Amino acid sequence: MVHTAAQQPTLAPDTVFDWLDEAADLRAAAGLTRTLRSRPADDPVLDLASNDYLGLVHHPAVTRAAADAALRWGGGATGSRLVTGTTALHTELEDELAAFCGFEAALVFASGYAANLAALTALTDPDTLIVSDAYNHASLIDGCRLSRSDVHRAPHADPAAVRRILAERTHRRALVVSDSVFSVDGNAAPLAELSAAAQDHGAALLIDDAHGLGVLGPGGAGAPAAFGLAGRPDTVATVTLSKSLGSQGGAVLGPRRVIRHLVETARTFIFDTGLAPAAVGAALGALRLLRAEPERAERAREVARTLADRLTAAGLHASTPDAAVVSVRAPGPEAAVRWAADCRTAGLAVGCFRPPSVPDGISRLRLTARGDLTDTQIADAVRIIAVTGASHADRP
Amino acid sequence: MVHTAAQQPTLAPDTVFDWLDEAADLRAAAGLTRTLRSRPADDPVLDLASNDYLGLVHHPAVTRAAADAALRWGGGATGSRLVTGTTALHTELEDELAAFCGFEAALVFASGYAANLAALTALTDPDTLIVSDAYNHASLIDGCRLSRSDVHRAPHADPAAVRRILAERTHRRALVVSDSVFSVDGNAAPLAELSAAAQDHGAALLIDDAHGLGVLGPGGAGAPAAFGLAGRPDTVATVTLSKSLGSQGGAVLGPRRVIRHLVETARTFIFDTGLAPAAVGAALGALRLLRAEPERAERAREVARTLADRLTAAGLHASTPDAAVVSVRAPGPEAAVRWAADCRTAGLAVGCFRPPSVPDGISRLRLTARGDLTDTQIADAVRIIAVTGASHADRP
Repeated sequence: MVHTAAQQPTLAPDTVFDWLDEAADLRAAAGLTRTLRSRPADDPVLDLASNDYLGLVHHPAVTRAAADAALRWGGGATGSRLVTGTTALHTELEDELAAFCGFEAALVFASGYAANLAALTALTDPDTLIVSDAYNHASLIDGCRLSRSDVHRAPHADPAAVRRILAERTHRRALVVSDSVFSVDGNAAPLAELSAAAQDHGAALLIDDAHGLGVLGPGGAGAPAAFGLAGRPDTVATVTLSKSLGSQGGAVLGPRRVIRHLVETARTFIFDTGLAPAAVGAALGALRLLRAEPERAERAREVARTLADRLTAAGLHASTPDAAVVSVRAPGPEAAVRWAADCRTAGLAVGCFRPPSVPDGISRLRLTARGDLTDTQIADAVRIIAVTGASHADRP
Repeated sequence: MVHTAAQQPTLAPDTVFDWLDEAADLRAAAGLTRTLRSRPADDPVLDLASNDYLGLVHHPAVTRAAADAALRWGGGATGSRLVTGTTALHTELEDELAAFCGFEAALVFASGYAANLAALTALTDPDTLIVSDAYNHASLIDGCRLSRSDVHRAPHADPAAVRRILAERTHRRALVVSDSVFSVDGNAAPLAELSAAAQDHGAALLIDDAHGLGVLGPGGAGAPAAFGLAGRPDTVATVTLSKSLGSQGGAVLGPRRVIRHLVETARTFIFDTGLAPAAVGAALGALRLLRAEPERAERAREVARTLADRLTAAGLHASTPDAAVVSVRAPGPEAAVRWAADCRTAGLAVGCFRPPSVPDGISRLRLTARGDLTDTQIADAVRIIAVTGASHADRP
């Protein structure tokens, strides 16, 4: 709605945000209200809701490394990575992370969100076509919007469509962008086919491996390593430090020339405070633990397959997991909320994904197949989900 | 440049990023190369380059709180704030921060960048005009670009211009956006006049108080408190936890209805992992210390005035500080880089701001007037800057 200046409404100061209450009422009417639940340190529920895929967030090797880093390096990084915010600890993490994942170089950001915004804005220009999977994460979508490039939203997990879009492009450059593992159902992208399509059309490939690092590939080296794409001169990956590595932050991995370009031009790198030393220390602690105990990655995948098989056997609509995420479909957003609440009452925390956080509009319970779950915990989780689910399916 | 599909260049995989090297060559030719310097834990230089305005980043009350939080709550928040990423520690920080700054409620983000993107995207719609100061921080500019609103870039620190732009608008809603203290020169925005303009035209006001919290206002409560705007029903502020509070992260402060709206709709809140417990703990430790020792804020302002007065007396072109930042002009980007390097050789770390990080194209040394600097350190800093500056001014 556009008014002329003469019709400009004059709002009293205490009414300028009235429209936010109206929007909240609409969400409430649609069953889409969201509220924060503050958890205690000694929460007794069984956690299948976090992204702590390897169960490392409370591991002493991680928490001790975080604490030691804070005591030695300070509470924060003190400034932009380009000014005072790069410590020797940041450089250690970047070197070890690049080597672990099989890339030439790495650059650590304050969040995975910032890493994705950086990669998409710095590696594109107005003469670039971005081809982005329809189910990509919000941070990739926002990165596309912040870029100065044309963006083509490709059908989900459809390399043939990507190939057609690339073949018809009129832009000098192209960048194909996909999550490696999609967060909602835990399915993997067809990365080998996407890479082949990119190669055949002179395009670069950007892989968001937030849900692959620590779970996929040899010893958890991630999806690029699993698909033989790590270290390619045309391939860039982003990762989070806040999921399998039990910390906070993100990183971009790629050829050295890409990392140099990000250091010099990426706004979310230049104009943001560096990652806090404690988070750098925690990620380093987790990475070293994973190198020493590479079987942790395979165990997380095994737990996911077991969970999915048993939920399916119990008559539920479970996804087929490629990594450490399993989802179970619900009849609608309100049923999903009630189902998750009943699970919690029974001692199990599960994620509840509803519109607009699901790309296909289907509400789900989302389960993290933590690698440190015991067989008893897995059995308990399946039992609770099945029992509570049955009672919901009976309701009209 | 646009090609037809038939003209599409076929690039070999190892050449798709060649254009990044060409861009690096252009930056090098313009004297704008940026490189990372990795600092040791026991860096002996006197630090006037960080944003550690109160000198709290290494304070035991801050580092111990960070370490304790990591040991008790884990290395990371484990998930989105809406799923498992809200701990009781996050809620404590939000309650205490809101009370300290004089707002109804607060919401903590993983970075100040994310907080600004959230406020600008969630509090606007396609029928909103955003009026944004020309010198605003990169994260505010990116937030404007991510919003679905029209954006009018207003002349720097010009409330009369803002008034004219608001009067002529044809949009139902308007949001006036400004840094409280501009990072480059340390000058304060005319917040009282901006608020009056917003009130007269039914607009909301968004203040980025990254460089004001801990320095301005009674006991460091920030610029909104200093200007009598804290807690207004039409006013929202964002802050960083990574400057005066010696940690990492950011927050949005405002009416409760605004915070609820952000929880339910802001993409950088919903789709990002919560701030790591160690960073929450560090910020809480710093906040409680500042409440107990409110004179720290005034001391930082006093150090800034002393620094600026003495640099001016030494014949240098120093800015007039409203908070804890002082800048000194350099004849050009390469001179600024050499000047900063000479300061470092003499034992003093200073910031070096060059295009494109300065809105007016003027290269500068940027000095942080840390509140814990001793009189001897202030004298040393002025002496080093003056001596090294004199030698640079002699060069052609």
